[in-house]
Amino acid sequence: MHTAAILETALYADDLDAAEAFYTGVMGLEVIFRKPGRHVFFRLADSVLLVFRPAATRVSSDPERPGHLTHGAEGPGHVCFAADRDELKAWEKRLGEAGIEIEDDVEWPNGARSIYIRDPAGNSLEFAEPRLWGFGEDAPDGA
Amino acid sequence: MHTAAILETALYADDLDAAEAFYTGVMGLEVIFRKPGRHVFFRLADSVLLVFRPAATRVSSDPERPGHLTHGAEGPGHVCFAADRDELKAWEKRLGEAGIEIEDDVEWPNGARSIYIRDPAGNSLEFAEPRLWGFGEDAPDGA
Repeated sequence: MHTAAILETALYADDLDAAEAFYTGVMGLEVIFRKPGRHVFFRLADSVLLVFRPAATRVSSDPERPGHLTHGAEGPGHVCFAADRDELKAWEKRLGEAGIEIEDDVEWPNGARSIYIRDPAGNSLEFAEPRLWGFGEDAPDGA
Repeated sequence: MHTAAILETALYADDLDAAEAFYTGVMGLEVIFRKPGRHVFFRLADSVLLVFRPAATRVSSDPERPGHLTHGAEGPGHVCFAADRDELKAWEKRLGEAGIEIEDDVEWPNGARSIYIRDPAGNSLEFAEPRLWGFGEDAPDGA
């Protein structure tokens, strides 16, 4: 069996309209599925970003199975998007133009760079070079 | 700029030892970074799964910047791993052997299949065919 790969990454937001405005307008993502008051899903390069309203996803859709498939975390989550060095500069420019504050800009011991921002719900978003974790053609081991 | 891709997906767990036992023993993942009491990170195919203890990540590492880079959600999150039809059968077998209950087994309107389980922290884990979202060679549009 192959090593598992991510198909869906989830974040939570009480205000889905604000999330949609941010992930389309600032992040440039396409909405692929929306259920007002419950979720909005966005297409990424080879996976999907799910943004759920936890008050809705904590309720089972099947009244006879109360905890069935429920989830829904409260408080800020974290996601990191891959960006090579040039893309990091492009993100920095785009985020600046959108008035998004860069919370931190980190140079890691292995030379990879990360920048951090917040989405409207307060989730911690990072943009980092894949070589931070040994991925990509510029990784030390070429992995 | 390319469409954003995920480099890190985060889940939260109060018991990191239980998380590590599950994600290595059942999911077959390799630990790439561990900070006892704070986090354990696992290598996926082309990204990283981060499991954090929210009580630790809600505290800034910089006493002079209280909210700096903090995150940490409470309650069950959600992640979906990609698996083609044969891999789903292999996962079902492995999960069964590990005594993990399949919470649901869903055939979606477009023919893709998902199975759902819980990790030890109660996070909702899904294994789904990428064609659920139009990815993969068996997708209707070949995307």
